[in-house]
Amino acid sequence: MNAEIISVGTELLLGHTINTDAAFVARELSAIGVNLLFACTVGDNPGRLRDALEEALGRSDVVITTGGLGPTDDDLTKETIASVAGAPLKIHEDSLRRLESYFKGRPAMGENQRKQAMLPEGATVFPNDIGTAPGCGVRTASGKVIVMLPGPPSELVPMLQHYVVPFLKEGSHAVIHSCMIRTFGLGEGAGALKIADLTDAANPTAATYAKENEMFVRVTARAESEEAAEALCRPVVEEICRRYGDVVYGVDVDNLESVVVRLLSEKGLHLATAESCTGGLVAKLITDVSGASEVFGMGLVTYANEAKMKLLGVPAAMLEEHGAVSEPVARAMAEGVREVSGSELGIGITGVAGPTGGTPEKPVGLIYIALSDGTRTWVRRMTPPGRVHGRGWLRDRAAGTALDMVRRYLSDLPLEPVQSAGPATTL
Amino acid sequence: MNAEIISVGTELLLGHTINTDAAFVARELSAIGVNLLFACTVGDNPGRLRDALEEALGRSDVVITTGGLGPTDDDLTKETIASVAGAPLKIHEDSLRRLESYFKGRPAMGENQRKQAMLPEGATVFPNDIGTAPGCGVRTASGKVIVMLPGPPSELVPMLQHYVVPFLKEGSHAVIHSCMIRTFGLGEGAGALKIADLTDAANPTAATYAKENEMFVRVTARAESEEAAEALCRPVVEEICRRYGDVVYGVDVDNLESVVVRLLSEKGLHLATAESCTGGLVAKLITDVSGASEVFGMGLVTYANEAKMKLLGVPAAMLEEHGAVSEPVARAMAEGVREVSGSELGIGITGVAGPTGGTPEKPVGLIYIALSDGTRTWVRRMTPPGRVHGRGWLRDRAAGTALDMVRRYLSDLPLEPVQSAGPATTL
Repeated sequence: MNAEIISVGTELLLGHTINTDAAFVARELSAIGVNLLFACTVGDNPGRLRDALEEALGRSDVVITTGGLGPTDDDLTKETIASVAGAPLKIHEDSLRRLESYFKGRPAMGENQRKQAMLPEGATVFPNDIGTAPGCGVRTASGKVIVMLPGPPSELVPMLQHYVVPFLKEGSHAVIHSCMIRTFGLGEGAGALKIADLTDAANPTAATYAKENEMFVRVTARAESEEAAEALCRPVVEEICRRYGDVVYGVDVDNLESVVVRLLSEKGLHLATAESCTGGLVAKLITDVSGASEVFGMGLVTYANEAKMKLLGVPAAMLEEHGAVSEPVARAMAEGVREVSGSELGIGITGVAGPTGGTPEKPVGLIYIALSDGTRTWVRRMTPPGRVHGRGWLRDRAAGTALDMVRRYLSDLPLEPVQSAGPATTL
Repeated sequence: MNAEIISVGTELLLGHTINTDAAFVARELSAIGVNLLFACTVGDNPGRLRDALEEALGRSDVVITTGGLGPTDDDLTKETIASVAGAPLKIHEDSLRRLESYFKGRPAMGENQRKQAMLPEGATVFPNDIGTAPGCGVRTASGKVIVMLPGPPSELVPMLQHYVVPFLKEGSHAVIHSCMIRTFGLGEGAGALKIADLTDAANPTAATYAKENEMFVRVTARAESEEAAEALCRPVVEEICRRYGDVVYGVDVDNLESVVVRLLSEKGLHLATAESCTGGLVAKLITDVSGASEVFGMGLVTYANEAKMKLLGVPAAMLEEHGAVSEPVARAMAEGVREVSGSELGIGITGVAGPTGGTPEKPVGLIYIALSDGTRTWVRRMTPPGRVHGRGWLRDRAAGTALDMVRRYLSDLPLEPVQSAGPATTL
């Protein structure tokens, strides 16, 4: 089954928005064995959208549009699709009821909101569980399928996963199974080299993804049944995990923070955080995980020296002698927050996230990350990477490193990866 | 002058890579008044690339390709462009010398690296100051221009800025100026209705963008000079700001948190945060802004009741009587953190972010947000929206509301929008 994506939106052609939708749709299509031939972007221009739709339908079995479904006047995707598919727009009663309940107790629903319940006649409707514009799949006279999705990623992603993937799978005969291996502390270059022989294979395929601080490998197999596809994946996943070793923090897990929360919960342990340059990011990541309250009671953002002294008991003399960005202060922060919170584990982070505040001795990018269990305190020193990185990157990297230290501690692993870990690891 | 982008790379069609190049090129084109009509992505497939090139040249004056210039065998962009432009590939001596000096002291340069110095005859060559593959601009027999750029953003961005923009500017006469109006607390539907007459205009154009909790309007004008374009924008921006009123938090500003940090800094005031359900998100957002240390010294993530009592002095009896998610507790948190930090302003947030932990009396989505200045404490109650929202959305919304309350306080505005504010506002 061949497919194309048409992204609709003048904001994309002006470069105001990066088209993450297309990449997300592409990944999901690839995971269910649909072959993406082509992708394009058109502005909010019905004529050009019509041309693009007709061309795409001439080449491919499925055309997926993203964007252009909102209540505003420049959103003309739906009218154009209805006309190309020969399926006039009609009020879809279920969607109208959803909209009415959505707007209940708010200023009266306007005509332009009601427009969102108009859908091509006979379409399979995909409810929007997050926002107001529903999506749909509509079949043309020549048996091709047009799938219409809203633009905001927060709406598109769940709609695609919950409704569109099952809808498209019905039309596809092979079953696809895929597993995602997630690592922290391994660069994509080094990671890809280690499994070069496996990424050449056709079934299952193995592909690496670099994602800021992390590197993932997706292993995908196609077979007649779910079980057969899974059985094809299993040995490859095991082999990759064997080669990568303890930088693998999970297979088919959500993210590093959810692994940390699960491990803490399993061991009945509690974590507290004292953050300076990461400014609450570690606490935010941990509390992104529903149920974090079981294992996380307190996080302190001690940005000022005053706060480090008052809340964590970091001695003034230590701050004076070593400076706030120093190994002893990171250590004292981890130990201090452990004590004040009554948790078994404490994290302390202090560093220079930039872009200002660096000095020759303490350049932007120098960050100390400490973990204390009351008996011992470990400190990792993140040194400035050779290339220029933004404040956001450095903070993400430091927060990830702190979480990975907790994961390693809870898994009885050495607190740093033992092997040389390729370019992304600057620790 | 009209243009199109063709992005080349199977990794884009598999969704392994998000196409940030296209957004970057689009932004630069728009800034020099080049009108981007269309953008598309093709895999590493010479036949499909040729089709896309020929179609684009039929519609537009300039076609920009990104990617597919590397030394590996699947990179066939250059051969295809040379053939379409009727300009055979020849060794470009300058580029060959650059490559030779690049590879000096490294393993001998192979034939596939030497291939990178092959460029269409008569092309304007754009040196690659970061990597190995040069770009170029080549004119076709019919006077159209094909610009060929490398895929890695670290190479594309400087090449575009240093060489391609000047190259294209020679052929363009109009200048584009645009302004972004940013609001918090206004839904896209309601916002669009208020300016429907303005979004119909052709120059300047006005377009609304919904972005999670916020709504933006971009006003763009095209004229002979920067000054003239700016003068066209100004009255429209002023009119939109007048109609929207105090939900506008800035024009051409980075984001709400940077406005808050600037206002605090201008007034010489300090803010401290006590967060429960947002788990450090407000602190994280504030410290995303470089220089936040001037105005932000301390943030407390008091997830457990124990932490609320110990760090903030929330009375046990209050927690007992009203529960942690209650107006008095939000108030006590804001007042407590203000005091313990010695800041002039304190924020307290407590609520049920879900997906678990909701009860009929205190459902998921109920969040109290308090701001105290020592004299008075204001509390806003965020009620559960009619539809299901994820934990992330609710937390983002609560954090944004807290920041907006601080902005309003510092700008001597009522702490809540006075007008009815359309669908995005569930407060």
